[in-house]
Amino acid sequence: MGKIPGNLLRKYVLRRTGSDRDDVIVGPGEGIDVSVLSAGGDLVIVAHSDPIVGALKRIGWLAVHIACNDVATAGVEPRWVLPTILLPEEWGEDMVDEVTRDVDEAARELGAAVVGGHTGYAVGSRRPIVVVTAIGIGERGKVLTSAGARPGDSVYVTKGAGVEGTAILASDFRDVLLSKGVGEDVIGSAETFMKEISVVKEAVSLARAGAVTAMHDATRGGVAEALIELAVASGVMIEVWEDKVPVRRETKVFAEVLDFDPLWMISSGTLVFTAPKDKEDVIKEVLSGLGISYAEVGVVREGEVCVVIHRAQGKEVLSEPKPEKDELARLWELYPRVTS
Amino acid sequence: MGKIPGNLLRKYVLRRTGSDRDDVIVGPGEGIDVSVLSAGGDLVIVAHSDPIVGALKRIGWLAVHIACNDVATAGVEPRWVLPTILLPEEWGEDMVDEVTRDVDEAARELGAAVVGGHTGYAVGSRRPIVVVTAIGIGERGKVLTSAGARPGDSVYVTKGAGVEGTAILASDFRDVLLSKGVGEDVIGSAETFMKEISVVKEAVSLARAGAVTAMHDATRGGVAEALIELAVASGVMIEVWEDKVPVRRETKVFAEVLDFDPLWMISSGTLVFTAPKDKEDVIKEVLSGLGISYAEVGVVREGEVCVVIHRAQGKEVLSEPKPEKDELARLWELYPRVTS
Repeated sequence: MGKIPGNLLRKYVLRRTGSDRDDVIVGPGEGIDVSVLSAGGDLVIVAHSDPIVGALKRIGWLAVHIACNDVATAGVEPRWVLPTILLPEEWGEDMVDEVTRDVDEAARELGAAVVGGHTGYAVGSRRPIVVVTAIGIGERGKVLTSAGARPGDSVYVTKGAGVEGTAILASDFRDVLLSKGVGEDVIGSAETFMKEISVVKEAVSLARAGAVTAMHDATRGGVAEALIELAVASGVMIEVWEDKVPVRRETKVFAEVLDFDPLWMISSGTLVFTAPKDKEDVIKEVLSGLGISYAEVGVVREGEVCVVIHRAQGKEVLSEPKPEKDELARLWELYPRVTS
Repeated sequence: MGKIPGNLLRKYVLRRTGSDRDDVIVGPGEGIDVSVLSAGGDLVIVAHSDPIVGALKRIGWLAVHIACNDVATAGVEPRWVLPTILLPEEWGEDMVDEVTRDVDEAARELGAAVVGGHTGYAVGSRRPIVVVTAIGIGERGKVLTSAGARPGDSVYVTKGAGVEGTAILASDFRDVLLSKGVGEDVIGSAETFMKEISVVKEAVSLARAGAVTAMHDATRGGVAEALIELAVASGVMIEVWEDKVPVRRETKVFAEVLDFDPLWMISSGTLVFTAPKDKEDVIKEVLSGLGISYAEVGVVREGEVCVVIHRAQGKEVLSEPKPEKDELARLWELYPRVTS
């Protein structure tokens, strides 16, 4: 699924938002991934829709997790999901079986109910598409958005940059990796990273503990893109140090032989978040309790809206989202015979 | 967009609903088009997702209206929409412009806000797809579903069977219709039926007046399919008389020359609903006040779950949804050179 450039997003999508309604607390915005809607009183609805396109294995499972991740980054538990399953024209019963089983499994893992949606096939379509809307309920004033980062906050990254991409490479680039001398054990271990795709538990727990100001799931474009979206949405500068960003051993091995940058590798499951300095202990307690590794990687500053990544070879300064710059997408173009 | 057969829906989709949650008041079911979710206290959330696939003109406008129609058949005003816009791989700025303008226009017509969603392109896709989730807020106990029809109720149909299909034919089958001697004036008049695609005002007003027990928007499969969905969801028999079903003059002309059955012609905008006998006057007041034509076409009975259509040539008995039986879909197959 490709994103359209930021200038078109600003020119069309973000300016065409229908009727003005007082009950919209947070509507569409750059780097904003959830809608926050007043249901009356202190009650707010948090909703998010996300599509997954492809012949990808486990598309239903992935689509539910990805949509729920974004609701969770608001600090709200995703309760309900509405999956729209669009099978290709040449569909079969086995596809209905597989996608619905995967949707069901992900929803059970999350404690969410599948409450509606649509299952059908699209004439002229060759690849399955699953669009999931996830909905949760929160309390007014307690819901977070990616606009909440404040100067002085610390910046954290969980799990490891590029974990999702590493798992996808282990599966889709298996032959390439083997031919370049990567061991079966490393590839097998990397494949298991897919189990870490959810940020729901940690995001909801961190928010409940009052430990965080803004959270983002690092999807396409990885940790770098997540940092830019936080900086743009919050109107701040974010400064991080590459050598502080956690990168798994398996990701390092793959990055070495395939020559990619883990910071720009798709990384759903990696939570990028900001928190006041004095919340260090609470964060440690919450994440250690859940068995989730993490690292403090930088700081939020006042100043020009941008992300500064200090690298061994110098500074990388990023001032607007670059959705097209994803390392997995680049590798797929470099290795056209590898199919997902 | 094709639906999958009812047996696969029952075997897979309706049985794989994730975690059991007490806050799901109405979840997935045959003929059920909305999800009703408890937000705590008397407050309920009504949500619905619907996809539109195709090179269809005004896809964004149509997708917003279709999704909002279903929320409105619960008697609830659609407040917020989340459109997921999936452009084809060969997308251009003009498409972003057109689809977002159409989404915005439909949302304004309905008083709804566009609060999120996603805009991107799908690699390998040749036709635009728009999936819209519409959300509204209702009061517990006052929300309707298509399971509400009760024996003794009267059955009503608004506007005319096949109005949407008639408008689509006027545009897509223009040359065929002209070649068969249909006048420019009839075709021009039929084209304007597209403006009647929304059922939101009448559905919300009828529900507020406490006049109805169940409502359904007649989309694919038309009035016949809507009646089956009401019968199946409510567990009742519905008996209707073909000659009582309103059919516009333009639809009759097209049906004559193209040889189709208006009752099975796609008809979004046509509200099919059931109401207690003593609500006749309230219904008249509400619908006349909105300038919407309608007719009483039959009655709800106890007995075997089915729809009985009394036709001049005899009885047609329908016992389960036949989503594949839509007259517009059949005509498109018969006239392959006509493209939408």
